Amino acid sequence: MKRRIITFLTDFGRKDHYVASMKGVILGINPACTLVDISHEVRPHDIREGALTLANAYSYFPKGTIHLAVVDPGVGSSRKPVLFMTKDYFFLGPDNGVLSLAAEKDGVKKAIVLSNRNFFRPSVSSTFHGRDIFAPVAGYLSTGIKPESLGRIVRSWVKFDFGKPWIVKGDLVGEIFHIDAFGNMVTNVSQQDLNRFAKKRAIVISIGKREIRGLKKSYWEARKRELLALIGSGEFLEISVREGDAQKVLKCRRSDRVRIRLQN
Amino acid sequence: MKRRIITFLTDFGRKDHYVASMKGVILGINPACTLVDISHEVRPHDIREGALTLANAYSYFPKGTIHLAVVDPGVGSSRKPVLFMTKDYFFLGPDNGVLSLAAEKDGVKKAIVLSNRNFFRPSVSSTFHGRDIFAPVAGYLSTGIKPESLGRIVRSWVKFDFGKPWIVKGDLVGEIFHIDAFGNMVTNVSQQDLNRFAKKRAIVISIGKREIRGLKKSYWEARKRELLALIGSGEFLEISVREGDAQKVLKCRRSDRVRIRLQN
Amino acid sequence: MKRRIITFLTDFGRKDHYVASMKGVILGINPACTLVDISHEVRPHDIREGALTLANAYSYFPKGTIHLAVVDPGVGSSRKPVLFMTKDYFFLGPDNGVLSLAAEKDGVKKAIVLSNRNFFRPSVSSTFHGRDIFAPVAGYLSTGIKPESLGRIVRSWVKFDFGKPWIVKGDLVGEIFHIDAFGNMVTNVSQQDLNRFAKKRAIVISIGKREIRGLKKSYWEARKRELLALIGSGEFLEISVREGDAQKVLKCRRSDRVRIRLQN
Repeated sequence: MKRRIITFLTDFGRKDHYVASMKGVILGINPACTLVDISHEVRPHDIREGALTLANAYSYFPKGTIHLAVVDPGVGSSRKPVLFMTKDYFFLGPDNGVLSLAAEKDGVKKAIVLSNRNFFRPSVSSTFHGRDIFAPVAGYLSTGIKPESLGRIVRSWVKFDFGKPWIVKGDLVGEIFHIDAFGNMVTNVSQQDLNRFAKKRAIVISIGKREIRGLKKSYWEARKRELLALIGSGEFLEISVREGDAQKVLKCRRSDRVRIRLQN
Repeated sequence: MKRRIITFLTDFGRKDHYVASMKGVILGINPACTLVDISHEVRPHDIREGALTLANAYSYFPKGTIHLAVVDPGVGSSRKPVLFMTKDYFFLGPDNGVLSLAAEKDGVKKAIVLSNRNFFRPSVSSTFHGRDIFAPVAGYLSTGIKPESLGRIVRSWVKFDFGKPWIVKGDLVGEIFHIDAFGNMVTNVSQQDLNRFAKKRAIVISIGKREIRGLKKSYWEARKRELLALIGSGEFLEISVREGDAQKVLKCRRSDRVRIRLQN
Repeated sequence: MKRRIITFLTDFGRKDHYVASMKGVILGINPACTLVDISHEVRPHDIREGALTLANAYSYFPKGTIHLAVVDPGVGSSRKPVLFMTKDYFFLGPDNGVLSLAAEKDGVKKAIVLSNRNFFRPSVSSTFHGRDIFAPVAGYLSTGIKPESLGRIVRSWVKFDFGKPWIVKGDLVGEIFHIDAFGNMVTNVSQQDLNRFAKKRAIVISIGKREIRGLKKSYWEARKRELLALIGSGEFLEISVREGDAQKVLKCRRSDRVRIRLQN
């Protein structure tokens, strides 16, 4: 048996038996694979949060890793189960956008709609494709079967509307898409977006009633409890408080706006 | 060393060092085993929730898996540590009912009370048998020792009172025993219970002040935000809201009643 | 490749991609290592809670285990990344005290400040040394490189102020440093501290307005719902309620005082 890594990203939480059932199915097919959780605490049915978490994590895994992502509000509907083969990875899950951000970032080589029921569990429930379709397919894929035997190649798939920042009266406007365990607020403004907008000129970032001048390179350039902005480890603009909790300080929420203007 | 799977189900939570200590003890005995968490978020001391979660998950793992379940309010009392050898699995934990639902479902071949201290840690605390008794026994069991060497065979064990649905004035009455991360409400009414009661006739399900006519096959047969009933992936009757949270809609809690009557 | 165990202790939570990114980096260097989570739910930036959790867990793992602990409020500052080689283990993380309690308990043989960038990721962010420094160093260490090649040996490191109990008017005064998932309140008074203070004489423990006479050997010596004190599995004095939640009963918090006096 090949030793392959399979990662898991779901909105199933950790209290229920759902994740373990998927792992059991996979280990029954390939007991030698290594299972790694990315997160099971995506907000229920929040495809966007799932897509962004996967996009932040996937590239740190070795080539050939199978990334399994099941945030699947449409389970049982006509949405398709899909496999993306990209430059370095496999991405497996519902064709609803949860995979496409990461898969397109890595470069899609082939997309296959899973239709060969020989690789599903004998009885497929209509509410839990994670266990009955995606887990067994991941298991078989990890044993080295030909991906093309899983179904038919398709040329199009569901793109995810990522919500790129936009320009309003000459300013760059983005939003907070994620707040982490430290209260750091991650925006949808990437390093690239900022470079293109500011072209190395000085910037001022507004959030709520507060303004932040320029970017720091690390938390440590700020004073204790100071509000700061920096490019986080995922290469997005982040609003933080040194040794503190930016969310509590700013009383912000996901989807709140952040506005960037050139300094006069 | 044999490569065996050991699963974990506890009420220890994930913040403390308890689960890791158990895993360390096992890996010290058999570094080649594969460790899989089922859940550590069973409500503290809730044997019933533990038993049901284990019963929902165990059968998806390959034959020979060792299922270790420690929900153990009686630790340090006269309750016995026990091993069930069933048709396909090993179940290990306190003899308080947390194992017996799953073990009996799979078919108990032998029950052994763990009494051979050679397979315990040298010093056994009175508050943490998970680490000092169950983990080392699981470790040794995974290396292939004879289960009979662990203690003495017994003919009886603690049954768990599962709380089967009952008949009131011709209706079938069950209760909600679990609410999952999506707000789906799982009842103790199994597919079998329903078949036996309804014999394919149409049914009406009452919960709180709401009524649901018939069962859907999937969430997707309902309209968006519609309340529905279906047989969930664990083969129990479940009350759900399509793309919504049934618990919030119904403001129900665990142990609330659900009543099923034949349609006139 | 050597099969080595690497444990993780962080304050990153489990919702974000941070922990998975670290694991991906390690598996890219050594796909054969076994990864075990101790906890990712240390309170953000709480070095003391991290240090105590690590000190409670580390010794249950087999010799040669690499313990990776990243509670790192000073990331990006001048605090040093460090490796302790102890009697039986490796401890890897920031030199801020999170490692030193456990490392000194096991006996430090060598301390090495990590300075050889060949063992870091090519680009080191200033906010996430867990992924860019500690994970790759753990990975390389698990493949069997010489620890001395990682940097330079140092003779001193940051000690952590553990907050030992003290004597007030002849009484021993400690505090609650941790409350576990069951509501058990763990104090900083060790079995040794108690022995030295009481010399086998009878004691009375005061907490809030309540008094507890003597220690029990297990929860089970108390009556149901009785408040009791015992030496917990980590060898510290613990205040508990049999089959109940001591925190809810006493309405105590972390850092609350506990006072021990000799019985008249």
